[in-house]
Amino acid sequence: MKELSYAHGGNIYSAAIHYGIHRSEFLDFSANINPLGVPEVIRKSIIENIDDICHYPDPHCVELRDKIGEYLKVSKDSIIIGNGAMEVISLYLEVIDPESILIPVPSFSEYETLGVKQGSKIHFLYMDESKGFKFDIENIQKRLSQEGIKSLFLCNPNNPTSFLVDKLELIKLLDYAKVSGIHVLVDETFIELTIEGNRNSMVEFLNCYENLFIVRAFTKVFSIPGLRLGYGLGNRKYIDKMWDKKLTWSVNFFATMVGAVLNRESNYLYNTRQWILNEVDWFYNQLLKIPYIKVFRPNTNFVLLKIICENLNSYKIKDKLAKRGILIRDASNFKGLDNKFIRIAIKDRKSNLILLENLRKVMEDTEYYL
Amino acid sequence: MKELSYAHGGNIYSAAIHYGIHRSEFLDFSANINPLGVPEVIRKSIIENIDDICHYPDPHCVELRDKIGEYLKVSKDSIIIGNGAMEVISLYLEVIDPESILIPVPSFSEYETLGVKQGSKIHFLYMDESKGFKFDIENIQKRLSQEGIKSLFLCNPNNPTSFLVDKLELIKLLDYAKVSGIHVLVDETFIELTIEGNRNSMVEFLNCYENLFIVRAFTKVFSIPGLRLGYGLGNRKYIDKMWDKKLTWSVNFFATMVGAVLNRESNYLYNTRQWILNEVDWFYNQLLKIPYIKVFRPNTNFVLLKIICENLNSYKIKDKLAKRGILIRDASNFKGLDNKFIRIAIKDRKSNLILLENLRKVMEDTEYYL
Repeated sequence: MKELSYAHGGNIYSAAIHYGIHRSEFLDFSANINPLGVPEVIRKSIIENIDDICHYPDPHCVELRDKIGEYLKVSKDSIIIGNGAMEVISLYLEVIDPESILIPVPSFSEYETLGVKQGSKIHFLYMDESKGFKFDIENIQKRLSQEGIKSLFLCNPNNPTSFLVDKLELIKLLDYAKVSGIHVLVDETFIELTIEGNRNSMVEFLNCYENLFIVRAFTKVFSIPGLRLGYGLGNRKYIDKMWDKKLTWSVNFFATMVGAVLNRESNYLYNTRQWILNEVDWFYNQLLKIPYIKVFRPNTNFVLLKIICENLNSYKIKDKLAKRGILIRDASNFKGLDNKFIRIAIKDRKSNLILLENLRKVMEDTEYYL
Repeated sequence: MKELSYAHGGNIYSAAIHYGIHRSEFLDFSANINPLGVPEVIRKSIIENIDDICHYPDPHCVELRDKIGEYLKVSKDSIIIGNGAMEVISLYLEVIDPESILIPVPSFSEYETLGVKQGSKIHFLYMDESKGFKFDIENIQKRLSQEGIKSLFLCNPNNPTSFLVDKLELIKLLDYAKVSGIHVLVDETFIELTIEGNRNSMVEFLNCYENLFIVRAFTKVFSIPGLRLGYGLGNRKYIDKMWDKKLTWSVNFFATMVGAVLNRESNYLYNTRQWILNEVDWFYNQLLKIPYIKVFRPNTNFVLLKIICENLNSYKIKDKLAKRGILIRDASNFKGLDNKFIRIAIKDRKSNLILLENLRKVMEDTEYYL
């Protein structure tokens, strides 16, 4: 079996076994989830409709697509629902079946895994650390053109760098891709957790670019990774084929009901926005004060750090923090990073203060040298 | 988009739209689910642990595999967990990647769908109606041998015929398959809802046959199709590869907790057994009294019927019953059947009486001729 324990953030089960600490006692900074917790509407709808799990879930997710359609002002025919963003990306790959894919890295590792599974050749473009791992649109375009690559995967904001691409640059890239017959997947899983939220989304341009496919999820914004719910937005001719290829009932009944939250949780979304406004810059500025780390400016609810002392690495720091009951993401297995990088979620103020205090202690505890 | 509405039983959502009746008001005989409803332990564990959906589910499903291992006395290393039986079968196909598959029909239609998706050539063997669609093991063996087919899919008890294969015959077949290098998938999704329950299972022979793979699910027995949970049992070398190919978090958090029911719901399983003992034969005998139908003897919680009057077909009878608030399964789209066949779930006595009364009325209402 594939060793997943440390491949992703958020595996509190493996950590609990490894450190002998019950999973409920960890402060989990390894998964980038909205700290406001599960919205009350979702909790209620699960409890009130619990007996309905005796029925198969709606395989077409009609109500959910209606709600998402209203929420983002898109036709429900341009929406595919999946078991997390992973199934959505997997279906997209099955339909597009690209010979090769360009992935600017560091980025979400599953693009490579799923692409390889589809039989696509993966090309990596290494972003420049000295420019904060900014997506270099000009270079991306050059690589696509020079190597005749017809498929591009972009995570925006990007995981693990927290970099948000400029919308005008993305439009320029999409224009180029359109005339060159290149499929562009933009993964907006974290878009609602950026300062400007959906205004950073490319959703409004769906009708302009037949070659644009947007991946989204409720996982992060509604704090429901355990429920498994992602969706994709794109041209109907691809969406229809994705529905055809999908396992009939891969989206469970509770997940199909999450749409209800979209028009009944304006408070939750308002509070989420307030949290992002309050915490992201504040946390960044606090991190800047901690010695021996370089902080990459975050645009969403997580931040990439580089350890800049020689005798400490990502594994050691992860281990030291775990022993203090705090989980972080060892980012060394992201292509383009090494064992000097860690990723930390941004949580509520109280938790953030605990993280900051413990991170400072870990950094100051031992004698490090640069 | 694929028209799923009538492809399977249990789509109360499409039926609700089609007939303008709220889904909660239908008596659903189209899906073969335990009428005892969701076990109290599962309801409780969902409610008590609801806030834990803010974490990713355990991708390895360790606790669940431990519980299933204890329940069936198999090693947890020989267990794959999936999003329903469908994902399990899909993973099995990916790993075995059979050039061709023999499917005795009528049987569950998704074997063909998933096999075609994998690129396998599908061979059908039509079972004899006059013998109650009994699996003809001798003929199955002959076809496998004559055409050099290296993969066989058997549903036991079979959907939609409710036929249960004799264990000794199955062992004979497995012996033949073993020496001939043929992979045998036995789908035991309904096995716990047969009179002898797990004693009808091939689980105890897993160690004898490396070529045996058993598909199971909690969907039917615990009345939780909305939750999405299936599993498979087989040789570790295949199981490991299936884990490697699986989408990381396809099994949601609530589903991973279902294991708790296995050693804490002996009452539920006892009552389930009592229901099967009381209803299956009784229902069969009542159906025999209804005119213009032929009843195939059931071995589990559903029964196949054939309409034997000329001016009535499966669609009409389904439509007439739906207008009376009762959903049944039009079985005409099962390969090997035609528009004279319907499938009816066996439910609790009160519901069964309503079905019987309405079916009798529908059959007697119009003037039919033979």
